[in-house]
Amino acid sequence: MQIKALAGEKPSGANLSAGAAQSLLLFGVTGDLAQRMLLPSLFALHCEGLLQPDLTIIGTARSALETAAFRQDTAEALRRFMPGYAPPQADLDSFLARLSYVPVDVTEAESFGALASAIKGSEDRGLAIFLSTAPSLFASAISGLEAAGLAHGSARLALEKPLGNDLGSSREINEAVLAAFPEERTFRIDHYLGKETVQNLLALRFGNCLFEPLWTAAAIDHVQITVSETVGLEGRGGFYDETGALRDMVQNHMLQLLALVAMEPPAQFDATAVRDEKVKVLRSLRPIDRETVVSHSVLGQYGAGAVDGQPVKGYEEDLGRRSETETFVALKAHVDNWRWKGVPFYLRTGKCLPVRQSEILVQFKPVPHSIFGDRGGELAANKLVIRLQPDEYIRLLVMVKEPGLDRSIRLREVPLDLSLSDAFANQRKRIAYERLLLDLINGDPTLFVRRDEVEAQWDWIDAIRDGWAYHGLKPKPYVAGSWGPSAAIALTERDGVSWND
Amino acid sequence: MQIKALAGEKPSGANLSAGAAQSLLLFGVTGDLAQRMLLPSLFALHCEGLLQPDLTIIGTARSALETAAFRQDTAEALRRFMPGYAPPQADLDSFLARLSYVPVDVTEAESFGALASAIKGSEDRGLAIFLSTAPSLFASAISGLEAAGLAHGSARLALEKPLGNDLGSSREINEAVLAAFPEERTFRIDHYLGKETVQNLLALRFGNCLFEPLWTAAAIDHVQITVSETVGLEGRGGFYDETGALRDMVQNHMLQLLALVAMEPPAQFDATAVRDEKVKVLRSLRPIDRETVVSHSVLGQYGAGAVDGQPVKGYEEDLGRRSETETFVALKAHVDNWRWKGVPFYLRTGKCLPVRQSEILVQFKPVPHSIFGDRGGELAANKLVIRLQPDEYIRLLVMVKEPGLDRSIRLREVPLDLSLSDAFANQRKRIAYERLLLDLINGDPTLFVRRDEVEAQWDWIDAIRDGWAYHGLKPKPYVAGSWGPSAAIALTERDGVSWND
Repeated sequence: MQIKALAGEKPSGANLSAGAAQSLLLFGVTGDLAQRMLLPSLFALHCEGLLQPDLTIIGTARSALETAAFRQDTAEALRRFMPGYAPPQADLDSFLARLSYVPVDVTEAESFGALASAIKGSEDRGLAIFLSTAPSLFASAISGLEAAGLAHGSARLALEKPLGNDLGSSREINEAVLAAFPEERTFRIDHYLGKETVQNLLALRFGNCLFEPLWTAAAIDHVQITVSETVGLEGRGGFYDETGALRDMVQNHMLQLLALVAMEPPAQFDATAVRDEKVKVLRSLRPIDRETVVSHSVLGQYGAGAVDGQPVKGYEEDLGRRSETETFVALKAHVDNWRWKGVPFYLRTGKCLPVRQSEILVQFKPVPHSIFGDRGGELAANKLVIRLQPDEYIRLLVMVKEPGLDRSIRLREVPLDLSLSDAFANQRKRIAYERLLLDLINGDPTLFVRRDEVEAQWDWIDAIRDGWAYHGLKPKPYVAGSWGPSAAIALTERDGVSWND
Repeated sequence: MQIKALAGEKPSGANLSAGAAQSLLLFGVTGDLAQRMLLPSLFALHCEGLLQPDLTIIGTARSALETAAFRQDTAEALRRFMPGYAPPQADLDSFLARLSYVPVDVTEAESFGALASAIKGSEDRGLAIFLSTAPSLFASAISGLEAAGLAHGSARLALEKPLGNDLGSSREINEAVLAAFPEERTFRIDHYLGKETVQNLLALRFGNCLFEPLWTAAAIDHVQITVSETVGLEGRGGFYDETGALRDMVQNHMLQLLALVAMEPPAQFDATAVRDEKVKVLRSLRPIDRETVVSHSVLGQYGAGAVDGQPVKGYEEDLGRRSETETFVALKAHVDNWRWKGVPFYLRTGKCLPVRQSEILVQFKPVPHSIFGDRGGELAANKLVIRLQPDEYIRLLVMVKEPGLDRSIRLREVPLDLSLSDAFANQRKRIAYERLLLDLINGDPTLFVRRDEVEAQWDWIDAIRDGWAYHGLKPKPYVAGSWGPSAAIALTERDGVSWND
């Protein structure tokens, strides 16, 4: 890079981000995330011509693999995890030709030597690094990179969650990263931000004059954010039991969604402006603390039951020991600012719930007065549903006249799809990581999470956990396949609100 | 009726309207409107079971027809004007059985005697009368009805436009009607109000909390109302040449549409509240008078040209003589109240235009600032299109994210159909008169035009004609098949607005 040579000043990540990296280094490439998501995403980007021709992809992990075997394993993983995706063989061949493999044991600094030789010259050509290893290995990976001269001014580092388990440990990780990678070259991934529909929410809010004037406490009654899973532990027992639903889902994904729904219009769609607005929301979250935690949170743990007609073991039986970890949490949150005065944000997430569904529901207030009277039928208040999983769509529910000659005007609720599934039906559904990997390679951090956001998230979450500990709150049991403990229903019904099941 | 018997007080039409009339009397039943619209509408209502079983339909006109021949002619008209509509033969038979015919020459009072005997007892059973004769016959028809005892307290009278050709003549007709039928039993028809989509506009505005907060000068840039015809005179030469586009279309249909778009929320969807709000709008129209008529109106007359690839004669040639009648008019109107301060309503209508199209376009303002910059693509301001002809729909144009991995977010305009064509696809498209005939029979005047509305409309129209006369404005020629004189384009372009062709 010219910049570094000039005056020995610290190279500017912002400057660098104008250029695409020519090498992508994937740590943990034999792991689950890389096999299921990262390699398939890169393959798809490759087939669509979205990767520059000279981009090389270097996989690394502890296994002693040759590049040839790695390519073969990758071809196998693509077949397995992209069923039905069948681009020409030539595309597969040219993709595999980009790949090479270097074995690295991140706990042994000297094993980085081979890596350094494999991607020589990356200071000039740009390097994107994706750490999809266990967080316990982050520190040694980073020192190894630094020692090998790979944490240079043209290198960016992407980190997959979880980043710590409370504010303190998150800060420790962030400090360790910062020692080698300044904030502007650190790309913290929350894959929810890579979802098409999440970005479409921003397009709708800020690309139209229709929604923003309504997007306040004057017109919105409340917001619901649900991330429900049907699965139980799935072998993640050890990690999950130390984490729990609050830290596994709410701390990252759900607070990010809340921030995107609630944020003020950023002046530009760029990394600084968007993240400045998000962090303002996160810092405006009213603390759920010792005083309010009992009335504003519900925690649960699934017992034996049935999901999708299949019998399911209870959490403790699944785990093989006693546990007080919550597998379900419901919260009533508030954003204390002008826009959201008095608008509750209800959040809930859990395992072994009846359906797999991630969605944001924006519930508008009813019309102040029905001019149609009883004969108009019941006027349902408008809703905007932003569905992220399993399908992705944005749907507006409006009342229209039912055709026909009833006396007076009779209304009916009709769903309007604002997503592009129809208009662009021939588009393949993308993996969220495609967007994020491309942005990482291109150096655009807008859809990555900044350190101040992560820390504001932990700050809010830690207060809830402190409240639970203070009151000795234990998860209430719920039957696997139900919508969590009945207290979660009561949480909203007390306000006259029903969860959108 | 009991009411009349009680104390000799004037019978209340409002009271009566609670009950359905058991006889429907159609004047001018051999005429074009009855054959094309009224009888087909009644047949459709009959087939759907929407007419009470004991309703009898009495046709009348000058021709000396027997009931049997009238039924045969009606069957023929239904076949001709409802192609593809094929209910069971039994439905046709039972419909024809409702029909009878009594010849009446409205200019001879004594010829009403037979009519009176044919619908004996209608004071108790309710009578709905539809005058679809030439307006010149209204007065004698009404005196004839009165003399025959048919203008009683249980009778309502429906009048088809045109009601006069200026405020004075309109008042004369209204006075003549009032002598026999009080306002609450006078049903003035503007068939645009019977259109499904017009009623749906009210359902959207007042059944949802989404639109009303935006429905003001703060969010709306301007409104366009276009009623364009491809046809020329079609043999209506004499009538049309005395009327012109302003009085044929703007005075009634277009001002009614404007009133529905612009009105404040009525407290109830009933005849008094809705019409009170409409008339307020009509009275708030800023006069286009001698001072402003030159800059705020454009009149045109078509010359020879081609429509739909077919050569078309010029208006004067078609008419067979010189004429200064306008076949095209474009206006820039304003509603001077709080809600619509500074929002122009552009109206245009004409004959021999390129397409047949009636629509209202509500053009919202652009977003105040694009956060997406150049890379977001051009942000089109939102539009709501209410299409009345040839198809009926309501469509919202919004910007959504274009799927894909462009850097930044790229937006695209997508149409959302708010009408029910999809949701209720199996419904037959109705004739606007079905709704209106049913309301007339049932005595609900909400979708009929009240006298004060008609007079406010004339008041505004007369000022324009006065301005034209004062300045000696003559119609500018335009080529048949074009969108009117170029001055009509200039009318909006001066404000930076383009017609939605």
